[in-house]
Amino acid sequence: MDVKTYKKDYIYSYTQGAFPTIELIKNKHLFVDKVIMHSSFKNEVVIDEIKSYIDNSRIFINDKLVEKLSDKGNQFIIGVFKKYECSLDENKDHILLDNPSNMGNLGTIIRSSLGFGIKNIAIIKPGVDIFDPKVIRSSMGSIFSTNIEYFDSLEEYKEKYSNHTIYSFMLQATKSLRDESFINSPLTLAFGNESSGLDLKYLNENSLIIKHSKAIDSLNITNAVSIALYEYSSKKSSY
Amino acid sequence: MDVKTYKKDYIYSYTQGAFPTIELIKNKHLFVDKVIMHSSFKNEVVIDEIKSYIDNSRIFINDKLVEKLSDKGNQFIIGVFKKYECSLDENKDHILLDNPSNMGNLGTIIRSSLGFGIKNIAIIKPGVDIFDPKVIRSSMGSIFSTNIEYFDSLEEYKEKYSNHTIYSFMLQATKSLRDESFINSPLTLAFGNESSGLDLKYLNENSLIIKHSKAIDSLNITNAVSIALYEYSSKKSSY
Repeated sequence: MDVKTYKKDYIYSYTQGAFPTIELIKNKHLFVDKVIMHSSFKNEVVIDEIKSYIDNSRIFINDKLVEKLSDKGNQFIIGVFKKYECSLDENKDHILLDNPSNMGNLGTIIRSSLGFGIKNIAIIKPGVDIFDPKVIRSSMGSIFSTNIEYFDSLEEYKEKYSNHTIYSFMLQATKSLRDESFINSPLTLAFGNESSGLDLKYLNENSLIIKHSKAIDSLNITNAVSIALYEYSSKKSSY
Repeated sequence: MDVKTYKKDYIYSYTQGAFPTIELIKNKHLFVDKVIMHSSFKNEVVIDEIKSYIDNSRIFINDKLVEKLSDKGNQFIIGVFKKYECSLDENKDHILLDNPSNMGNLGTIIRSSLGFGIKNIAIIKPGVDIFDPKVIRSSMGSIFSTNIEYFDSLEEYKEKYSNHTIYSFMLQATKSLRDESFINSPLTLAFGNESSGLDLKYLNENSLIIKHSKAIDSLNITNAVSIALYEYSSKKSSY
């Protein structure tokens, strides 16, 4: 048995650590190929939970392989899975990310979105690979409870989900997030790339700005998304 | 001339890159020791701004040194400064961080705080070193507009700033952030360590929770702080 260190063109990827591995198995067990544990991993609660979902014949002990696949060297369990594709739920609210370029940020955004009740995320290409183990780790496994779909362009997204009102977060907007009631439904909260923000083609009557002092030029993208989600969920009382 | 790669016990530290270096020079020019540029650095606007604050005799070109001190290899300017100590402004609102353990997170929190008008941050020890270049870089230089003071304990902080009402953010709190009016002034927004949160001794009638779905066990610390700051500044209209 061999599993190689992840590359984007592989059809398989893997989780690192107990928590994301359980999230994988609970939510996507049809796609799980195998679970590999380090011989020093003795957490019976975790092992029992894993065995309740997948057959013993797919659970292996292989210290060398676990060590190779654990970037940070302190993970004792790896869940190997076949990559899959999703469509978004057309009746639910979405997050849209135009060309997200940082894997840790993307994982954190997936986790925050789930925390505020949004389980459908559109990514406009390019944009980092959602199945990179770094994204999975920083999402803490919440990626497996989330539908994520890639699009070549904003136009392609708008055509497929034409029922969604897009609220675009941009420094050029004049309406403050705080004053938005989010009455349109379903809706999409859209955010740009870490360095460049959203292109001006996103500017419309529903564009919003998160007001902050002039002492900084912008908020970190993960913070901007989480503030938007917080305000959205306060207005929607959606959880 | 030599500047060594930063260690915590050195009396000097340094900025990496033009933006934080200018923030350093603008806000703490009395502590600037020297500026070291790469010979390929040609941004005249930046160079002129630096020369308007510090004497030519303290500006050096040294490619090898700049390359050594730039962790990520793409920074062309280094600002070396003598470390300094601050006291907090007792009449202003504070952020309190109990044992922050991640340098990138701390820098991001300093930046968000400045973005929402809070320029005074208390750190309860232990906690990472605010002068580590990683913290400075992730604060994007906003650390130089912020007073940061270390304390051995919460008790020491409370004794020195006894006029502050502490709002502690904890999963054990029952009052929702959204329902808090922040009428007490001056006030302190307190947050715990990334893994362990705040100790139960922080639990009081002003403890607050940021409500989120049960699908995640907690929000990332930088997101929690930025959401709290957003709500605080909306209520205070403090900028």
